[in-house]
Amino acid sequence: MKKLIRINMNVVSAVSESVPDSYDMLGGKSLTSRIVFDEVDPLCDPLGPYNKLVVAPGLLGGTQVPCSGRLSVGGKSPMTGGIKESNAGGTAARALAKLGVKAIILEGKSESGQWWVLKISSDSVALLPADDLIGKGNYETVRLLRERFGPKCAVMSIGQAGEQGMAAASIAVSTSEGYASRHCGRGGMGAVMGSKGIKAIVIDDSNATEKDALCEIADEAEFRSACKEWSKELIATKSLLTNLGTTGVLGIVNKLGSLPTQNFRRGQFEFSEEICGEKLKATVLERGGKTGHACSAGCVIRCSNIYKDRDGEYLTSGLEYETIVLMGSNLLIHDLDVIATLDRMCDDFGLDTIDTGGAIGVAMEAGLLPFGDGEKAILLLSEVGKGSIIGKVIGQGALLTAKVLNVTHVASSKGQQLAGYDPRGFKGTGVAYATSPMGGDHTAGNMLPGRGAWRGIEMNSQKENQIMASVDVQYMTAALDSLGLCIFTGPVPESMKWIAKIMTFAFGRTFSARDVVQLGIENINTEIEFNKRAGIKNSTHRMSEFIYKEPLMPNGFIFDLDKREVEEALELENGYVYGNGFLETYSSVELE
Amino acid sequence: MKKLIRINMNVVSAVSESVPDSYDMLGGKSLTSRIVFDEVDPLCDPLGPYNKLVVAPGLLGGTQVPCSGRLSVGGKSPMTGGIKESNAGGTAARALAKLGVKAIILEGKSESGQWWVLKISSDSVALLPADDLIGKGNYETVRLLRERFGPKCAVMSIGQAGEQGMAAASIAVSTSEGYASRHCGRGGMGAVMGSKGIKAIVIDDSNATEKDALCEIADEAEFRSACKEWSKELIATKSLLTNLGTTGVLGIVNKLGSLPTQNFRRGQFEFSEEICGEKLKATVLERGGKTGHACSAGCVIRCSNIYKDRDGEYLTSGLEYETIVLMGSNLLIHDLDVIATLDRMCDDFGLDTIDTGGAIGVAMEAGLLPFGDGEKAILLLSEVGKGSIIGKVIGQGALLTAKVLNVTHVASSKGQQLAGYDPRGFKGTGVAYATSPMGGDHTAGNMLPGRGAWRGIEMNSQKENQIMASVDVQYMTAALDSLGLCIFTGPVPESMKWIAKIMTFAFGRTFSARDVVQLGIENINTEIEFNKRAGIKNSTHRMSEFIYKEPLMPNGFIFDLDKREVEEALELENGYVYGNGFLETYSSVELE
Repeated sequence: MKKLIRINMNVVSAVSESVPDSYDMLGGKSLTSRIVFDEVDPLCDPLGPYNKLVVAPGLLGGTQVPCSGRLSVGGKSPMTGGIKESNAGGTAARALAKLGVKAIILEGKSESGQWWVLKISSDSVALLPADDLIGKGNYETVRLLRERFGPKCAVMSIGQAGEQGMAAASIAVSTSEGYASRHCGRGGMGAVMGSKGIKAIVIDDSNATEKDALCEIADEAEFRSACKEWSKELIATKSLLTNLGTTGVLGIVNKLGSLPTQNFRRGQFEFSEEICGEKLKATVLERGGKTGHACSAGCVIRCSNIYKDRDGEYLTSGLEYETIVLMGSNLLIHDLDVIATLDRMCDDFGLDTIDTGGAIGVAMEAGLLPFGDGEKAILLLSEVGKGSIIGKVIGQGALLTAKVLNVTHVASSKGQQLAGYDPRGFKGTGVAYATSPMGGDHTAGNMLPGRGAWRGIEMNSQKENQIMASVDVQYMTAALDSLGLCIFTGPVPESMKWIAKIMTFAFGRTFSARDVVQLGIENINTEIEFNKRAGIKNSTHRMSEFIYKEPLMPNGFIFDLDKREVEEALELENGYVYGNGFLETYSSVELE
Repeated sequence: MKKLIRINMNVVSAVSESVPDSYDMLGGKSLTSRIVFDEVDPLCDPLGPYNKLVVAPGLLGGTQVPCSGRLSVGGKSPMTGGIKESNAGGTAARALAKLGVKAIILEGKSESGQWWVLKISSDSVALLPADDLIGKGNYETVRLLRERFGPKCAVMSIGQAGEQGMAAASIAVSTSEGYASRHCGRGGMGAVMGSKGIKAIVIDDSNATEKDALCEIADEAEFRSACKEWSKELIATKSLLTNLGTTGVLGIVNKLGSLPTQNFRRGQFEFSEEICGEKLKATVLERGGKTGHACSAGCVIRCSNIYKDRDGEYLTSGLEYETIVLMGSNLLIHDLDVIATLDRMCDDFGLDTIDTGGAIGVAMEAGLLPFGDGEKAILLLSEVGKGSIIGKVIGQGALLTAKVLNVTHVASSKGQQLAGYDPRGFKGTGVAYATSPMGGDHTAGNMLPGRGAWRGIEMNSQKENQIMASVDVQYMTAALDSLGLCIFTGPVPESMKWIAKIMTFAFGRTFSARDVVQLGIENINTEIEFNKRAGIKNSTHRMSEFIYKEPLMPNGFIFDLDKREVEEALELENGYVYGNGFLETYSSVELE
């Protein structure tokens, strides 16, 4: 039977609840955001007793749908002050789905300061003392928990950053190998987990039976066949990702002049070839690492990697584009070993690499260390683990670091560091940064080169149609996030059609592509309403000033879209965008 | 001729402008806020090129009206993100008024990083290099500038805090003795001044003639006589302030159980007698210091003091209630010498003592140093001057310090530390903290014991009528701040009547008490509209969570006023409060 697991830290209790009917067709991001909307006071302190952390596999989690292994965590964000969802691959989503766990809700706050491990298996939910794990990084935490509970268990954990309530703190999700390298990174969900006194969640699905599964398939044969077909299609069309990983796009972003370089002061990095996808792949393979690595079972795109050091020892995995940009070109660092070391440290401390790269960039801007100095960057980052004051500052992300260091040149939106595409040149992604309830988060609607063709997007730097295209992509992305699908399956009409077909067989009733998009629309509208109640609106929470004023060299790009049009793209003064005509226009163009 | 002096730091230029007619009846807070409203983008970065710092004497500045020597500075606040005005005594307001300077507007931002002294005299406005002053505290800065420009000059300056862009940075205004002890403290106006590259403003009124004066008196004889009468009345009724200073109220606040103690965890301090007004007076006099000291020429209340150390050497002056509470009971420190030392350090670094006391309290809460440890508190504060990272954190005020140190128990409103009256027991002052566009600032509407009797307020802890009484007091306070009058002249109907009489003679047309209050209403409405555009509303920017939830011991007070009523007290969803009936009710009760 499907269930919600509710953990109340005021009294340190765990109860299983049945799932309200209204949550039936929600999962992943649409479920975490819905529960946060229903249960969390939008004005509460994100690290106080009234915030909640919600963990949910996607609506299609645990099934054979390709790339359906994403795990969502959500709550009110200490980074943005608004609602946040962050998702990751790894082993946890599938394990929860197999156990029929629709969501875990962590609520309340213990005054005792005691730490706990939440252990979930088919027959029990238990809170176990975790004092022996405190102060430990994610790698050691996962190792110890696998030792104790067996290597088949999935582990979600926080490192020193989450323990210290840092706004850039992530939640690590272990891979099948036991690497703590997949992270729900953005928005400080690790700090929310830490505020609840939960160091780790261990999920043991070993005794789960088929009837426990979250998603019961209506037409098994047709479903399998549709999944297989889509897998083939994905394998065929996503070969760049499989071959070079997410970093495959670095060369083109640099060529287009939108690669964040030197704290977003420039759009091109003269050493881009030292950190590009080709170079990464060559380095990985030369040392016996792995490319084409799947971050979760059932992934057919396999954009991940395993990165070994010069001695052939495992250093990190899932070394991705965003990390390489924010810790690389953004810091004028072009040594992949340094970047991989920073990545490993972030994974271990439980820190988002984008926020942290941004914060280090700001520290360089302030002259605390020189741009390009990898050794000093590593030393600075190590302070987070030590719990020193500068470590605690860096762990709060770029904007707070900028305040403390008196730096105004910091690239953010709604308090959150912008990701690896400068919005002045990648205007569609800029619209997402500026409008998404998620803040400066590319995963809310990334307009990569070629995306948005259905809206007439030819160049990432063009002004025309970027707003509409971004809205389309944000809605479709939210749909993918709700289903538990990796965004690399594509926030594009073609994928919506595939998914509609698959959902039709899975749920035994007809879904159109428009119905799939609708999941995303409702999700985003819920989030916008929460943010509005929290006092966060796009008309008052813009991107950093310089994005609108300072030309991005060498091309002189500016984020010059009409501010009012951008602000209203998802929010209307007197109601939701639902009646705003986007879906109608969009549907007639592509969806049916 | 009256003039505006506009300093543009983009091009490092100074120009004199005539005063628009619409600014004619504005001064002090009503003028700084009006210029900020007219000229500053509410969404701008407070420390970027688009914010402005506006300096203005009051509308009655430079006249013989008692206690009319307040100087207002305003801008968008780096502490609250909203509009801010902060005022102080000292010598500057009178000097500007004598020169006919209605306001100074500092705008733009130089990329050069160069520092300047702005020198204003009757025949010139000049920007002079200030590199030799950088890194110096306010006391040394004032000493050097008086050495250079003569001891009659008024000096406004920033210390190391303003130079470092700290959100708690104040602007010091020199006294006639050359003490840098009067501060525009709240809201980080010192950081805004620093962001403009202005280390100090020197005002030399030595060649000013009578015709230069800002306020030309219509009926000199009647005006003088009214001023004299009011002075007598103030001297008679404010003897507690003259005798014991602002700290005279400490005993009663403690007795009423609302004295912030141990980071606002309690409302009574067992050592209150060690830091109360009587003890302060005895200590001051015993060492040859001074009580009944006037902070600016023309003050008849004289609540200030000169505090000498054990060796009889000058230590600080203007050691006030708020400082003694936030640095005393709030930190469990009951040694006046320690508190006076912290006060002197704050004055010298150019830091608001309320924000700084709050930040040190948070650091104690986090265990960085023990509560009650004065020596360690002094060491911690000294870090601000050194520019160390913990110093930079503390200098950002309590809320940011709390984030960095993972503390949720921090008393603030709109990002700003609450002052020395716990709002759970002093509910009327709580309404001001919760609703004033100024944030957690008691000077926006302090409901001291006995205030608000015209609304039936008998106890500070009662629920009834507190909202209406606070609104009255906020409007009247804003009127005083606009006229350049010290708030100790009283935000009460009686004072409004006196002022109406005086204004009638000054301006040669009839003013009613209602007209005087109207100045405050218009000022607050302007500020609310700015804040609304900046995304700051009372319905989304409440006081800290615990104020509404955690009983204040020993009396168990809670801030239990109806949230919605509080939120709407000054802001209505669809318009200003002007039509909200308050003034109408109020006028009929008392004003005419």
